[in-house]
Amino acid sequence: MGSVVARRYHVEHMFVLGIDPGLTRTGYGIIKSSGSTETAVAAGVIRTDPAQPLGERFVELARDLREIVAEYEPKAAAIEQVFVNNNRQTAMSVARASGIALLVLSEAHLETAEYTPSAVKMALTGSGTADKQQMQRVVAMRLSLPSAPSPADAADALAVALCHVQHRVLNARVS
Amino acid sequence: MGSVVARRYHVEHMFVLGIDPGLTRTGYGIIKSSGSTETAVAAGVIRTDPAQPLGERFVELARDLREIVAEYEPKAAAIEQVFVNNNRQTAMSVARASGIALLVLSEAHLETAEYTPSAVKMALTGSGTADKQQMQRVVAMRLSLPSAPSPADAADALAVALCHVQHRVLNARVS
Repeated sequence: MGSVVARRYHVEHMFVLGIDPGLTRTGYGIIKSSGSTETAVAAGVIRTDPAQPLGERFVELARDLREIVAEYEPKAAAIEQVFVNNNRQTAMSVARASGIALLVLSEAHLETAEYTPSAVKMALTGSGTADKQQMQRVVAMRLSLPSAPSPADAADALAVALCHVQHRVLNARVS
Repeated sequence: MGSVVARRYHVEHMFVLGIDPGLTRTGYGIIKSSGSTETAVAAGVIRTDPAQPLGERFVELARDLREIVAEYEPKAAAIEQVFVNNNRQTAMSVARASGIALLVLSEAHLETAEYTPSAVKMALTGSGTADKQQMQRVVAMRLSLPSAPSPADAADALAVALCHVQHRVLNARVS
């Protein structure tokens, strides 16, 4: 008697959320990953009002992020890591916004990866120093969009999501 | 017919929460402010487990802060502002923890002030460069404690709360 080897090809089909955090503008992007192809599901920017007290702005950011997670139910998430630049005040605001994003995603039981800007560039273009135009072209091409979504924060968020899908696929192949 | 002038002396009697944020240790202190005197109500440290994923640690920090706010129902809160030091990784963690503290307090509709370490020192000792021992002595003295509470993060949190009470009293007198 022969044996039947059942081989199941697992087709990954899930939503992945990318976040490019900031106090005034936080970009978000949702992509659908189905095995080897990715499509854009949604992308946009959460803006908070600079006229509001800082605490209120964070409350708004957290609320909007929770709504996005509830609406799209992503199965994985990734955040672009803070680039500590020369402006301490800005770096600090971005760090706080990214902390809040990480909190909200973790409270939703979403495992969340973080990637530096150069890691995202490397994953998408093969070069850690790709410029903004190159990145936007790759994002549009990979997601079969006529052009990269604007504003730039939304495109950056899609890039982080693409980077994460790529790392997941690589890790899955390795293990 | 004469007129009666009713003068009400408003005696402030409320709980004030002070927070000294950090990823591994976040100090908290609650003081009761009754007009001119302050007493210590509670002080402690929220620790998060370095072995846990970062997101889980933030979830724990947020949960514990919410419990403290629910238990003591403070009417005002203050956070010690991040001191951006030479260690970027540490500065970033503290910034994120302080962002989460600000979020939790704002979600609880607590108006929250922020003070730099030197502003806290200035308020309590009259010098922005007071050392740790001086600060701990003043905290103990002002709160009629035999000695400053340990660990240091708890004492620092009480100092921020005291600083905030002092600013509130000054502002009330000015306005």
